[in-house]
Amino acid sequence: MSGKDEPRWLDEAEMTAWLRLIAVAERLPGVLDSQLRRDSGMTHFEYQVLAMLSDAPERTLRMTLLGLQTNATLPRLSHVVRRLEAQGYVERSVAPEDKRAINARLTDAGFEAIVEASPGHLATVRENVLDPLSPKQVAALSDALAAILSRVDPTGAAPQDRRDSGG
Amino acid sequence: MSGKDEPRWLDEAEMTAWLRLIAVAERLPGVLDSQLRRDSGMTHFEYQVLAMLSDAPERTLRMTLLGLQTNATLPRLSHVVRRLEAQGYVERSVAPEDKRAINARLTDAGFEAIVEASPGHLATVRENVLDPLSPKQVAALSDALAAILSRVDPTGAAPQDRRDSGG
Repeated sequence: MSGKDEPRWLDEAEMTAWLRLIAVAERLPGVLDSQLRRDSGMTHFEYQVLAMLSDAPERTLRMTLLGLQTNATLPRLSHVVRRLEAQGYVERSVAPEDKRAINARLTDAGFEAIVEASPGHLATVRENVLDPLSPKQVAALSDALAAILSRVDPTGAAPQDRRDSGG
Repeated sequence: MSGKDEPRWLDEAEMTAWLRLIAVAERLPGVLDSQLRRDSGMTHFEYQVLAMLSDAPERTLRMTLLGLQTNATLPRLSHVVRRLEAQGYVERSVAPEDKRAINARLTDAGFEAIVEASPGHLATVRENVLDPLSPKQVAALSDALAAILSRVDPTGAAPQDRRDSGG
């Protein structure tokens, strides 16, 4: 057998799927950011932070878990939470059960901000991602992405099964 | 009928697919960048620029088309091409057929760089994206992404049907 060290190049179907995945991964964040900046004065990452907190018990999460749930490193998360804190949307405090840990809590002002931002954001998600897909395609996309996430997120911490609380 | 202005919240299947898509879009670029930086001293975006040029006729593309094919704005692309030019991988020149347009051309050194980088990058793509998927899942993912791209890339310029030339 020749070519033991020869890489297995992508066939046409694989290459097409791969280029489409890169294109969506590169373009989608800009689409989400543009709408949220324009209509709600926040980035999509800030929206995600507020959304995760709004769904958490007592609207509070450990910073480490919040980082995993928003797919962010702790330095990136800390930077953004500091900004949200300055806006009065989030408060940080030492966790009562573990003095080495920091909790982030959504304030009432932060809750109002996410409630106001969510209809516009939701419309953008529907228009750009869900409306062009049939329910069968949504399910197939979801399955394929779960398989990819098992590799790129081996912690399994991404909130793959979070349900929308309706705001 | 009530709720005309009430947003249609995502159902559980939609929310799961959506959160998985965000998670992949957020995490995949970091995985690709880490491997390429470590093994080949380039970012994934730089790799994409070199790869698109290596597949183009005479290894040359208009900067505007290269931007569309790499899902980048012109300022971002110009910044990166300037860096690749300093490394001797790319050369820019005024397009002979249109004096207002700029061409980017892959040099021999740039071609060698992409040939050397591609096996490691390909292995990362296989390991993180394609290996966990069946051929049927690849096709379903590809279809769903094409539908999303028709919204987030209305120009249709993303290289959805580019084939791998085998380096």
